[in-house]
Amino acid sequence: MRNRERLLETARAMITEHGPGKVTMDGLAERAELGKGTVFRRFGSRAGIFRALLDDDERRFQEQVLSGPPPLGPGADAEQRLIAYGRARIPFLLDHHAIARAAMDHTQPASEDGVGMTQPHIRMLLGQAGLLVPLPLLDSLAVQLTAALEAPLLLYLSMDEAPGPSGSAHLLSESWQVLVERVMRG
Amino acid sequence: MRNRERLLETARAMITEHGPGKVTMDGLAERAELGKGTVFRRFGSRAGIFRALLDDDERRFQEQVLSGPPPLGPGADAEQRLIAYGRARIPFLLDHHAIARAAMDHTQPASEDGVGMTQPHIRMLLGQAGLLVPLPLLDSLAVQLTAALEAPLLLYLSMDEAPGPSGSAHLLSESWQVLVERVMRG
Repeated sequence: MRNRERLLETARAMITEHGPGKVTMDGLAERAELGKGTVFRRFGSRAGIFRALLDDDERRFQEQVLSGPPPLGPGADAEQRLIAYGRARIPFLLDHHAIARAAMDHTQPASEDGVGMTQPHIRMLLGQAGLLVPLPLLDSLAVQLTAALEAPLLLYLSMDEAPGPSGSAHLLSESWQVLVERVMRG
Repeated sequence: MRNRERLLETARAMITEHGPGKVTMDGLAERAELGKGTVFRRFGSRAGIFRALLDDDERRFQEQVLSGPPPLGPGADAEQRLIAYGRARIPFLLDHHAIARAAMDHTQPASEDGVGMTQPHIRMLLGQAGLLVPLPLLDSLAVQLTAALEAPLLLYLSMDEAPGPSGSAHLLSESWQVLVERVMRG
């Protein structure tokens, strides 16, 4: 466990200094002053390093949602929490774009860890909001709002270019708020 | 041109009878009573047959939107057209699921033909609706509503399973209508 934390901390420092492109299994072992075998056993592949970093950050994000201060955490009303979730999630996904690309391993099926948390959370908040719509529609509405929030950013994972102006964190966050306010009050 | 239509018509008949899995370059040539070289020159690969079928159907769908009867075509108000678009597009994407999977060619970058039409159309209708939101947000709102409409169905392209209950055409169409009504009137 100590080794894992040391390796992840070292990988973060390397990414901050030189970007994800310069992180290799050998380079990481050398800089962390650990054996190459240790790095290999921990992460299996170069992509595995980035997956571990993502998992770590996703876990921290999830903790903020489950038990952090409101309005992202519990204690605010459903509409405010839903707005806060998007306003936190959009920059999180944009900031993690380079790491998420590097974590993609084309020899393995895509992980759905990141996608997994958003839909149940949105579904729960829709339920708490007491919308005047038939119950089964809350499920499909949660599917569609999750797509509205995450798909524009996940789409960039398959591209090399940066998002266009309408894909900026600021605009997507603002229009997410418009969408939520109208859905919740409509 | 005659050969292309004859081949596509034959491919459609084969898909109706036996599903897309049984359509091969050789089988198509034989059944259409054309040479294998003709099939190869027209489509290049087996995936190319399915891409041509998709292109054909997308073009017809687009014609309905651009010049078909209202509310899908012009003549209804923006809200009704937006609802009608989703109610037509969702079953279209579900119906084309098997063909779209077969059209995926992992040796080439994914085509974005289908994604291309929806966002400009939604953007245009949002503009016509006179929403009381700042103009730049109409672009990012169109990005998010496009994702809400299409991403849940495009996601199935990368899976083998059928959509779950909350991904049924009926529920997604109903909640699309709820989403649009609230966004337009909210």
